[in-house]
Amino acid sequence: MDRNAYSRPISLKKVRVTDAFWKQEMELVRKEVIPYQWEALNDRIPDAEPSFAMRNFRTAAKLNAAKKEGAKPVKWPLEFRILPEEGKPLEDRFYGCLFQDSDFSKWIEAVGYCLTQHPDPELERTADEAIDYVCAAQLENGYLDTYYIISDQDQIFTNLRDNHELYCFGHLTEAAVAYFEATGKDKLLKAAERYADYIASCIGPEEGKKKGYPGHEIAEMALVRLYEATGEEKYLDLGRYFVDQRGTRPYYYDLEHPECVEKGKEEQQRYSYQQAHLPVRDQEEAVGHAVRAVYLYAGMADVARLTGDETLLTACERLWKSITEKKMYITGGIGATHVGEAFSFAYDLPNDTAYAETCAAIGLVFFARRMLEIRADSRYADVMERALYNGILSGMALDGKSFFYVNPLESVPEACIRDERKEHVKPVRQKWFGCACCPPNLARLVSSIASYAYTQSKDTLYVHLYMGSVLEQEWEGGKADIRITSEFPWNGKVSLEVRTQQEAEFTIALRIPGWCTSYTLDGQPGPMAGEQVKDGYLYVKRAWKDGDRLELEFPMEIRLLAADDRVREDIGRAAVSRGPIVYCMEEADNGKDLHLYRLAEDPAPVERRREIGGMTVTGVRTRASRRKPQEPGPLYREYRKPEYEETTVDWIPYFTWANRGEGEMQVFIRTGD
Amino acid sequence: MDRNAYSRPISLKKVRVTDAFWKQEMELVRKEVIPYQWEALNDRIPDAEPSFAMRNFRTAAKLNAAKKEGAKPVKWPLEFRILPEEGKPLEDRFYGCLFQDSDFSKWIEAVGYCLTQHPDPELERTADEAIDYVCAAQLENGYLDTYYIISDQDQIFTNLRDNHELYCFGHLTEAAVAYFEATGKDKLLKAAERYADYIASCIGPEEGKKKGYPGHEIAEMALVRLYEATGEEKYLDLGRYFVDQRGTRPYYYDLEHPECVEKGKEEQQRYSYQQAHLPVRDQEEAVGHAVRAVYLYAGMADVARLTGDETLLTACERLWKSITEKKMYITGGIGATHVGEAFSFAYDLPNDTAYAETCAAIGLVFFARRMLEIRADSRYADVMERALYNGILSGMALDGKSFFYVNPLESVPEACIRDERKEHVKPVRQKWFGCACCPPNLARLVSSIASYAYTQSKDTLYVHLYMGSVLEQEWEGGKADIRITSEFPWNGKVSLEVRTQQEAEFTIALRIPGWCTSYTLDGQPGPMAGEQVKDGYLYVKRAWKDGDRLELEFPMEIRLLAADDRVREDIGRAAVSRGPIVYCMEEADNGKDLHLYRLAEDPAPVERRREIGGMTVTGVRTRASRRKPQEPGPLYREYRKPEYEETTVDWIPYFTWANRGEGEMQVFIRTGD
Repeated sequence: MDRNAYSRPISLKKVRVTDAFWKQEMELVRKEVIPYQWEALNDRIPDAEPSFAMRNFRTAAKLNAAKKEGAKPVKWPLEFRILPEEGKPLEDRFYGCLFQDSDFSKWIEAVGYCLTQHPDPELERTADEAIDYVCAAQLENGYLDTYYIISDQDQIFTNLRDNHELYCFGHLTEAAVAYFEATGKDKLLKAAERYADYIASCIGPEEGKKKGYPGHEIAEMALVRLYEATGEEKYLDLGRYFVDQRGTRPYYYDLEHPECVEKGKEEQQRYSYQQAHLPVRDQEEAVGHAVRAVYLYAGMADVARLTGDETLLTACERLWKSITEKKMYITGGIGATHVGEAFSFAYDLPNDTAYAETCAAIGLVFFARRMLEIRADSRYADVMERALYNGILSGMALDGKSFFYVNPLESVPEACIRDERKEHVKPVRQKWFGCACCPPNLARLVSSIASYAYTQSKDTLYVHLYMGSVLEQEWEGGKADIRITSEFPWNGKVSLEVRTQQEAEFTIALRIPGWCTSYTLDGQPGPMAGEQVKDGYLYVKRAWKDGDRLELEFPMEIRLLAADDRVREDIGRAAVSRGPIVYCMEEADNGKDLHLYRLAEDPAPVERRREIGGMTVTGVRTRASRRKPQEPGPLYREYRKPEYEETTVDWIPYFTWANRGEGEMQVFIRTGD
Repeated sequence: MDRNAYSRPISLKKVRVTDAFWKQEMELVRKEVIPYQWEALNDRIPDAEPSFAMRNFRTAAKLNAAKKEGAKPVKWPLEFRILPEEGKPLEDRFYGCLFQDSDFSKWIEAVGYCLTQHPDPELERTADEAIDYVCAAQLENGYLDTYYIISDQDQIFTNLRDNHELYCFGHLTEAAVAYFEATGKDKLLKAAERYADYIASCIGPEEGKKKGYPGHEIAEMALVRLYEATGEEKYLDLGRYFVDQRGTRPYYYDLEHPECVEKGKEEQQRYSYQQAHLPVRDQEEAVGHAVRAVYLYAGMADVARLTGDETLLTACERLWKSITEKKMYITGGIGATHVGEAFSFAYDLPNDTAYAETCAAIGLVFFARRMLEIRADSRYADVMERALYNGILSGMALDGKSFFYVNPLESVPEACIRDERKEHVKPVRQKWFGCACCPPNLARLVSSIASYAYTQSKDTLYVHLYMGSVLEQEWEGGKADIRITSEFPWNGKVSLEVRTQQEAEFTIALRIPGWCTSYTLDGQPGPMAGEQVKDGYLYVKRAWKDGDRLELEFPMEIRLLAADDRVREDIGRAAVSRGPIVYCMEEADNGKDLHLYRLAEDPAPVERRREIGGMTVTGVRTRASRRKPQEPGPLYREYRKPEYEETTVDWIPYFTWANRGEGEMQVFIRTGD
């Protein structure tokens, strides 16, 4: 690892996103998702199950106050999800899922990012008040998880595997750092630090402490972030401990609950759901719950970067390849099976029963960005871009009002409704979820998108994604504003203009997307003499003067893609893509029974400007043929070469599907070979 | 309905099966399955979970005796499956699944059929002793189900929906009739009658009786059979009551356990698993647990035949079409989803996640035979034959020692092992099952196969299946032996010879299989002048003299079949068949990655004599092409027309798959269109 080459995300306060595409998504988050979510957190959505998240904080604060007055705490059974008894008044107990606190954290994190782009005193006041409630719930020793504070404080840290305490801590900490960085207010940050200190007093390598680690990872990333915000090494130490301790023998989870050890299960399978079946450096294959997996790998990459641990980086690289070379959908979706919301085996990527949870693709972006920080290699950025424009944005309706948890590559409404094996696949987006992880995760990603687009080292600005923005940046060689304009993802033209009062020497490293075979810089096929291309990045090093410009063009050709032959479900099939966008065919354009279409031998794809759900997009039309209606006959009949009639198929961007009512959808089309 | 056209199965005592193919299967049942099963029933199989079936009868008998001495019965909780506590001695309680009694019944039924073909005094003595144990368990009032006798007699008939009492009764009754008809011994028959009388005293239309019906159907068929064996109308009445009462409002199951009504579930869905969502005459679609469904439909057909109820027959015909035109695999397997072991929606017939339980295909044969009794129509017999030679026989290994519960049409061992969505699909047959329904069901079907091959009316012998046999039969027009020789399923030649001392006038109705487009009778393309063909049967009416012969030939061409276009999983695919046999390709012949093969445009199929697991079969070889190995590259890459190399594919009969170790298997092959 070359620490000098490390880059870090830029501060969101020093960037203004002006991009037409991303601005629209960010505005949906700001105007629709964040306000809706606040109402949800406060149980004010009619016809929706209450969240109880804010109520739980208030209940915990009330019990804390009562305890100071000498009240004896009541104990409640620790159930996964606690719902009020019908017709009875609410009690002073915890309600909702045991990880309900994290809903607040995801919200306040998104609010933080949002405030950097769009100051909003009223929203900030609401957030400050919410933080007051949360902090009032914190115990004197620093512990802050209302599930245990309210239900049974004696049980704190007794079920790290299942009960999400360290997961909630991780989200709280990410939120606290984000809000601090956005507003300069450190009340929540201090609370997170106190909580982290308390955790470190209970869990760690020292004698007498628990040798545990999170059942649902995220604390690893969060602790690194807390370290980087505060400079306190102890937080990095705890994050590293979680990474190093994971999967070591004897298994902590065996010791934690010896009565729950699944005897029949082979040892190396036992905790693969939590990626705790092996020490992380020995893990060869991405397995288990996909969100947990990529959160862990992101944390491993963070620790590897900060510690220079090559063995850990090697493991990250191996797991990256396991996912992106064998276990990822063309949309960037990961987690092929709903059983355990998990990775399936290599090349098992069914289209119609896919899980491909929105949050898992988001986690893959977290992992990719962290790998990019260590080494700018377009392999990581290509995957990041693929997930963002396809399997992640598909998670939210174009009006920001409904969401997919599961992002299939083929959908037949009748199957979703009538086939219980596809119960997890929804034909239309849902308003909100009982376990509302994907919408707020989308909100925090979209509102911080600039920190994925750009990273910076001491002498280089890395441009990983192209989006219109104005960056105020500083390097060793001087400071400058960089104004980027782009029409991504619809047009590959990008221009960068440098505004500076003094000449500034620095490098701009521009990702050459994997989907284009040629590009031009200032009208010339690149790279020009003196420009270096390394690992898919074009390095333009100059002494920049005010008004200097770069004009880039990455031609967005319509491409037909096929999966590796080992992907059984895609054999004899192809998909359409253009630039970073993967396409799909929908019933709304092509009628029912999409499986009857076959791509023409000469598909002659053309672009078509389309309006989908109020968004102007570049659609595609290809030549195709469609089976002629069969004569009535028995279910199984003499095979005859089927008759086809020539026609066309209209393709829309995958992320825009299911915005025009319920209907069939398909990404891969038969090719007749 | 034309009651004069009704036919009935012939007595197994008046037929001797000489057929090479079926004889081999019957010998497996006689020499392997029945003895093994007896050991299993008596908990004498090392390394297998004990059945406890015979032990339960002995325990019940012991408690009955003790009760007479005044002992007070102990009550036990009614769990679905009761296993002994490890390391503790067995107690005087029920062990096993709550329907464990039926294991005995299925065994003794198979024994009965077996004795008709192969007298075996030792086996008969064992059976008689077993019957003694069973009868000793019967309560004085006639009740006979050890689960309740031992566990809690107060709970008898309090959970008809779930607790299988009437299911166990049905199996007991079928067994009792079969054993009586085989041996003339009526001890078990009398026990079944007493039990039936007791049921009729508790359940029925009269005031004060429960208005219930079986949760798992079979009693309907069994009661009809009991009626036909004894001539007692009351048994037909009870069977008819079960049929008529089913699905009426208010739902009996709602009344039985109001606390268990699933409120969220739409009313018409509520008991569809048990086919009790609607009155049977209003049911349009085959739904729910596939075995239960076809057992019900078979019972409905029985009642329709005996009562002349046209509305019931119409429902049977509609449900028959729902299955065979929309919900049946090419192997005759039914039940496309493991969720509830149930029918999926129309045309949803996935190959790799198929359930296609052996017992369900057996039940389809029961239903088909009963429809044939009402009207000889080759549509029914074609399906019966399809199921028998394919999706049923595949349930048993060629050595009779291991069994499939699930019969997929595509299998990749890695997927079965690593993909929990396919956990139900096994790559190799299992020795025995905890819930051992399929092996004994196969045993009773195979050992009574002649009663499916032939039915008889007062003037006609119907030949539905071709198998070598000697039938001693009598008609109004005289009596005769008919000697049939056949090399089915490998060769379509059949000859029939009549041996009679006096001229006998009767009709032989010969099924013309749906898979042949022409046939010859005595060397001439049929039918000849004076012969009638109706509904796929050739009626040959003669005054038969000793030595009269008919020589038939149904050419067995190799045929390529395709599914209806609405079967998404089979689009662009074809299957190979010949005569009644459906073929599959196996890794043992064709290597791994069967999905890489494509059928040649001119497949030029040829027959190949093969030995599989000791059986000589007619295999098939077709021309095909196989994708050339891909160059290493990314998971998704530029689509290029794939390169293929010409080769051949070897096909073996589907029912012989998985007899040569673990490997891939596939029925449908891509055709490139």
